[in-house]
Amino acid sequence: MAVNKIIKRLLEYRQCLMQLQLLGFKKVFSYTLGDKAGVTAEQVRKDFSLYGMRGNKKGGYVINELLVTINEIFQKSEVQNVIIAGMGNIGKALSQYKNFKKNNINIVAAFDIDPAKHTKKFGISVYPLNKLTSLIKEYNVNIAIIAVPDIAAQEICNILVINGIKGIMNFSPVVLQVPEDVIVNNINLGNELEGLIYEATFKAK
Amino acid sequence: MAVNKIIKRLLEYRQCLMQLQLLGFKKVFSYTLGDKAGVTAEQVRKDFSLYGMRGNKKGGYVINELLVTINEIFQKSEVQNVIIAGMGNIGKALSQYKNFKKNNINIVAAFDIDPAKHTKKFGISVYPLNKLTSLIKEYNVNIAIIAVPDIAAQEICNILVINGIKGIMNFSPVVLQVPEDVIVNNINLGNELEGLIYEATFKAK
Repeated sequence: MAVNKIIKRLLEYRQCLMQLQLLGFKKVFSYTLGDKAGVTAEQVRKDFSLYGMRGNKKGGYVINELLVTINEIFQKSEVQNVIIAGMGNIGKALSQYKNFKKNNINIVAAFDIDPAKHTKKFGISVYPLNKLTSLIKEYNVNIAIIAVPDIAAQEICNILVINGIKGIMNFSPVVLQVPEDVIVNNINLGNELEGLIYEATFKAK
Repeated sequence: MAVNKIIKRLLEYRQCLMQLQLLGFKKVFSYTLGDKAGVTAEQVRKDFSLYGMRGNKKGGYVINELLVTINEIFQKSEVQNVIIAGMGNIGKALSQYKNFKKNNINIVAAFDIDPAKHTKKFGISVYPLNKLTSLIKEYNVNIAIIAVPDIAAQEICNILVINGIKGIMNFSPVVLQVPEDVIVNNINLGNELEGLIYEATFKAK
């Protein structure tokens, strides 16, 4: 299962709203927000009304009220522990990514098959795969990031699922096969850049 | 302007189709593809029909035909030169990201204000900002990746836009202010992980 598109959009709206607030704005119209988030104004209004957020035609939405409601939806009672599988360049970058901490996300351990990487020098401890089962239990981990080479992605995914992982952020370009109750969020950086190039250069011609 | 959602979906479909083909499949139904890509079957059919791709109710779509059409849409006559602004952890990881090359994308140079990073040791040359204008011209660059600290994101964005950059892949959580003709693709890894956690843990309760 993929991550619900409404959830992704709500997080995009939140990002825009926080910035508008920083700039001193008190209210926002659906078309402004839609333009920033890359969706139509109708989509914004539909998403908001699903969660009981109402604006008014003349004044728009109150930014602060929207933020309170969206933050309630994502409110976390506790820090979420997350593990990283694969300490290549992407894995290393994620292990030190500051914005995770701001979002109440704690990277507790990383795993790699290369013994040379079993150190603490990246700010977190890197373990061999045979420590995976015990550490997932110890830290009560439900979420994992896959940043291994493409060829190893499905295999590590299977191991994670057997050990009870319910959510996977997948940086490999492989479409992972998972059971119905496991959510996968694919981050395909090649596709993201290719889509941007298409829009920015080919449509301009 | 954000990247068109249809473009993003077409690239997701392509990823799924390539993998189905590798697994030996010849045909696919819209609901299978929608399930993999996280959209409805109706959305898949609507997107395909926009580009003249037709299936049949009993047999579905021919995977090879879909791939030919999608590849034609994204066909590039030449390698796209891209620059990276900011050689922190994310910038370094992207400078060595193998899947860009596969997509005909060439990272030609990186920029950082830290003189200690002005080396070639990351596989590409890292330059001070005062080389930006001449290198963008020399390599005919239209696309840039922003991977600088949040506080510097808008400033570097302005510099890139002044120098003719038309597409920006933005890894900072800042919603950038750009002219209408500049496309921004925001990759907010904190939001992506938070959305996954929400779906995988909170909805399960």
